[in-house]
Amino acid sequence: MTRAERAQLAMMLEVCAYPKPGNVDRCHDYTRTRLEHFLASVILSRPALERAERGEGKVGELIHQAVSLASVHSGGNTHFGAFLLLIPLVMGGDIPGANRIAGQTTVEDAIAFYRAFQKSRVRVIPSHELDVDDPGMLEELRTRNMNLYDVMLYSAPRDMVAREWVNGFQLTRRGADLIHAAGIREGVIAEAFLSLLASEPDTFIEKKHGPEVAGATMRKAREVRDGVRDLAAFDQECIDRGINPGSIADIIIASIYIALGEGWTWDY
Amino acid sequence: MTRAERAQLAMMLEVCAYPKPGNVDRCHDYTRTRLEHFLASVILSRPALERAERGEGKVGELIHQAVSLASVHSGGNTHFGAFLLLIPLVMGGDIPGANRIAGQTTVEDAIAFYRAFQKSRVRVIPSHELDVDDPGMLEELRTRNMNLYDVMLYSAPRDMVAREWVNGFQLTRRGADLIHAAGIREGVIAEAFLSLLASEPDTFIEKKHGPEVAGATMRKAREVRDGVRDLAAFDQECIDRGINPGSIADIIIASIYIALGEGWTWDY
Repeated sequence: MTRAERAQLAMMLEVCAYPKPGNVDRCHDYTRTRLEHFLASVILSRPALERAERGEGKVGELIHQAVSLASVHSGGNTHFGAFLLLIPLVMGGDIPGANRIAGQTTVEDAIAFYRAFQKSRVRVIPSHELDVDDPGMLEELRTRNMNLYDVMLYSAPRDMVAREWVNGFQLTRRGADLIHAAGIREGVIAEAFLSLLASEPDTFIEKKHGPEVAGATMRKAREVRDGVRDLAAFDQECIDRGINPGSIADIIIASIYIALGEGWTWDY
Repeated sequence: MTRAERAQLAMMLEVCAYPKPGNVDRCHDYTRTRLEHFLASVILSRPALERAERGEGKVGELIHQAVSLASVHSGGNTHFGAFLLLIPLVMGGDIPGANRIAGQTTVEDAIAFYRAFQKSRVRVIPSHELDVDDPGMLEELRTRNMNLYDVMLYSAPRDMVAREWVNGFQLTRRGADLIHAAGIREGVIAEAFLSLLASEPDTFIEKKHGPEVAGATMRKAREVRDGVRDLAAFDQECIDRGINPGSIADIIIASIYIALGEGWTWDY
């Protein structure tokens, strides 16, 4: 199996896994974003993942291409954060390789990334000083000579996906270890998802609903994990309130990619 | 969108559509064959679909490649019949193009097809005289100088997928027309599936359970369509008895491929 296929399988397995509180899964759609939108994004992003595997192009431009290919449908942001993790992982092969990629970015990568960001209009990596809607922003990146790693470093305190870039993919690694430990059987991915949700406030929720909701969601996930709160009711509550832990989903995708490369299989 | 991507989207949309009586969908797995097996088959078959689009290779060999790529998982036959329709459609672009491909096959195509058949061990195109488990069978094909079109002609009375090859993709066309007529909204694919199931005995069911069960399934589907039988109960009955209309699913995939190429969209 190629790395690009492994990345596609990871995205497919994550969106199918259920129940995942608050997120699209086999049993739940959002009105605007449905299971089919995520799976179309998986299918259509392949050329960018293949170029990443062949080492054609730079990381920022490849993220831009993946986001562009996956944005042809009306379902909004499906895999922006996932591509931010998968592109360096596919380029580098594994976490050490992705760290090397992250360490070699340029200001051109930062500019391509911001263009992808503008294209998808997602609630990821918002920055207080660097306003993505500011037409002078790209010039500002050049003036400060910020590369893509600098942008991630800048966003890391408020964004757990950006944080993966600067901390050596720590949560990605932890998710992969949870998957390995759970073994080859039904439910592994949904359990790993719940486990991360129970231990980390999701920064996508934080940006959308504020830190209190993100913290409360984490505590409720912990109660579900510990068996003192009903999973289905928690899932429904999240969906009704539009509380979707999108960043943890992105990280779990990266974790599945890593676990698949280390011999784990979904094919129980 | 490329033809290969259109074929992949068609396979993805078909398996996600629900409720589809008796078949794997968003809400139903079989123990051995799950939603993820079908979606992995969609992802992994792409190189064969891309070669078909580029006109690299012959139809029998490309069917063999698609089946081989999609058979790396333990979920058994996922898209054998679908590839039998999609490969000529992707090679030729549309139905007239696929008819041209079907009219130009050779004995080598027939041999490659039988090798694919042996690989997937599926309940499709069984033949009374040409036993696929007979090691002398490939020699027999050569002696009789049967090309792949001849094999389909021979199988057509007992196999509705083979029949598409020799009747100009009639049910594929009818399915595409049903999809166009239904418009761009939720539920279109499941309705087209039910409509074909209500008017044609599924030959996959026929081979597995006999003509009476296939006929009864068709009549029950008609009652569901006419509002005098409960869809969910019918679906459950089919699943409990292992009655899966696999050939009509294959044809609906081809219909979605055609409809997408004619301007229909799933992205309501």
